[in-house]
Amino acid sequence: MTFEDSDAIGEFDVIRRFFKPLKGNLSQGHFPETSLLLGIGDDCALLNAPVNGEVYAITSDMLVEGRHFFKDTSPSLLGHKCLAVNLSDLAAMGAKPIAYNLSIALPNIDVDWLEQFSNGLHAIADFYGCTLIGGDTTAGPLTISITAIGSVAPKHALRRSGANIGDDIWISNTVGDARLVLGCRRGEWHIELPWQELAVRMDAPTPRIDLGLGLRGLATSAIDISDGLLGDLRHILNASKVSADIVIDDIPCSPVLREVSLELRRLCTLKGGDDYELCFTTPKKQRALVQTLSEYLQLPLTRIGEITAMTSEQPEMALLEKDGVPLPADLAKQYMRSFDHFK
Amino acid sequence: MTFEDSDAIGEFDVIRRFFKPLKGNLSQGHFPETSLLLGIGDDCALLNAPVNGEVYAITSDMLVEGRHFFKDTSPSLLGHKCLAVNLSDLAAMGAKPIAYNLSIALPNIDVDWLEQFSNGLHAIADFYGCTLIGGDTTAGPLTISITAIGSVAPKHALRRSGANIGDDIWISNTVGDARLVLGCRRGEWHIELPWQELAVRMDAPTPRIDLGLGLRGLATSAIDISDGLLGDLRHILNASKVSADIVIDDIPCSPVLREVSLELRRLCTLKGGDDYELCFTTPKKQRALVQTLSEYLQLPLTRIGEITAMTSEQPEMALLEKDGVPLPADLAKQYMRSFDHFK
Repeated sequence: MTFEDSDAIGEFDVIRRFFKPLKGNLSQGHFPETSLLLGIGDDCALLNAPVNGEVYAITSDMLVEGRHFFKDTSPSLLGHKCLAVNLSDLAAMGAKPIAYNLSIALPNIDVDWLEQFSNGLHAIADFYGCTLIGGDTTAGPLTISITAIGSVAPKHALRRSGANIGDDIWISNTVGDARLVLGCRRGEWHIELPWQELAVRMDAPTPRIDLGLGLRGLATSAIDISDGLLGDLRHILNASKVSADIVIDDIPCSPVLREVSLELRRLCTLKGGDDYELCFTTPKKQRALVQTLSEYLQLPLTRIGEITAMTSEQPEMALLEKDGVPLPADLAKQYMRSFDHFK
Repeated sequence: MTFEDSDAIGEFDVIRRFFKPLKGNLSQGHFPETSLLLGIGDDCALLNAPVNGEVYAITSDMLVEGRHFFKDTSPSLLGHKCLAVNLSDLAAMGAKPIAYNLSIALPNIDVDWLEQFSNGLHAIADFYGCTLIGGDTTAGPLTISITAIGSVAPKHALRRSGANIGDDIWISNTVGDARLVLGCRRGEWHIELPWQELAVRMDAPTPRIDLGLGLRGLATSAIDISDGLLGDLRHILNASKVSADIVIDDIPCSPVLREVSLELRRLCTLKGGDDYELCFTTPKKQRALVQTLSEYLQLPLTRIGEITAMTSEQPEMALLEKDGVPLPADLAKQYMRSFDHFK
């Protein structure tokens, strides 16, 4: 007896139709080499050992409808973003993307939605040479869970724990736009400025893969800004057991954000998440090299402060205005709290 | 200014308190060696290259409340099961578990629930020497997504595509109990038999890791039974481009299942999923070796049929009763359909 599929599209059809097209297409990525021995279609994928003394960098991010994205989000942008946020973690480790697994719970099978979602997903995956190697498809409230795998030499991995006293603290591009857009969409604030131009910063973040690779051997620590600059920088300080001085008016922001009230601008740049820029530290003597890297990548890299010694048992962060005056303590404390999904 | 946590337990507290304890505990597993260079607490985990010419085997499974488990499922058993189903995929590949990432969406933070869930999870992880290396925690409808990583030499990997004409087809232990229990709990059928004794088969499946390792170099193909024996076997036939004769009355089942009606027994053994036993093929001349492995592992391994040549463009499956008479075509067709989350 031969096997027959019913007319209705099912779980295996979804995988075959929307999540298998990259197979056989492995050489078209930004990074053409591949480590894949066996892709989608068996109990496991098989990934060759990394070469040249590199190790695998592995990260996972889960996106839930209503929590990480609005119900009416463009499926194509969502496909982009769910992989972008994982690639951003690889970038923050200085790792080169190789492969990813996608597990997705879908409330129903909507062929148009899946078509657009998979197009967005495959476009960014292809650009960064990151191959879909497996995953799971099930019914359930819309939830997307990706595990991304990259490679990096251990000595080049950009850990959070390597920041040294005296190091410069840098931010790529600008921060705060994603939070500004979120607040406008939610109606938290109303501004008479073209904030819609910035929607791409929230909807289609750019993982700073090239920057992460450029920082290998240069940065002493790095993290990507997903939960807010100060909260994320705190992870570097905790891991490195150091403190920091931050000149908050030096934090780079977009022209639109520069036009809003000081209070709103600070809220967005200091506490806003979802920017996926890199915050990193380098030895002071490398300032010229960072500048060269910035020009090479055509990506602004801005010094926002300096790593200092801990003077108590906990890392401390001094938030300074342009004139060197510290921000009032209660305000600073409020900015320091990063986004928490449960608080 | 030092950082202060609020009294409420938050995302980072959950990770610190419930999902970090295995760190520093790496040598207590069933397989003591570890490949971990950097665990939880950075943007990525770092995993050393596998040794001895092995490659990494990678698999993902997602479990959604109300779809894969009941709302009132014991958190401890759920912790066990969500990793077990992933380890089962490693087993079906002949891979040795190494590490896993856990992404979990929680409707709220229930400390008791998390305590029990993480205990169940860590117990099975520890037993199989599989180290938690990262993941994501967020608010959302209860959804658990795991990516597990193991290692295997390419020549030993138990792919679905290696079954040859004349090979024996085997099943480990018994199948059908998980489906019987599910039906009893759902009220699909009422039986006057101690089915509660079998609840463990649905709630706490045993990943057949040792069997998978024992089948290296012996089995020509393998798959784990998650969606139903016939449906899963179909994947082997499709990948290997072969057909099969199955003697359905030879399919091993528990004493309880042997007591139910013929119709219910066949439904459970042929179509029931969630058993996580291995179905595998071996050359006929290896029958004695399979028997030896069964005795060594103290795990029944039962021959249920034989791989045959395809006589048309599609793999075919002949379902035979004990006397060699084929099952009526419409009944066979109905059994052939495996579980689909969307159908």
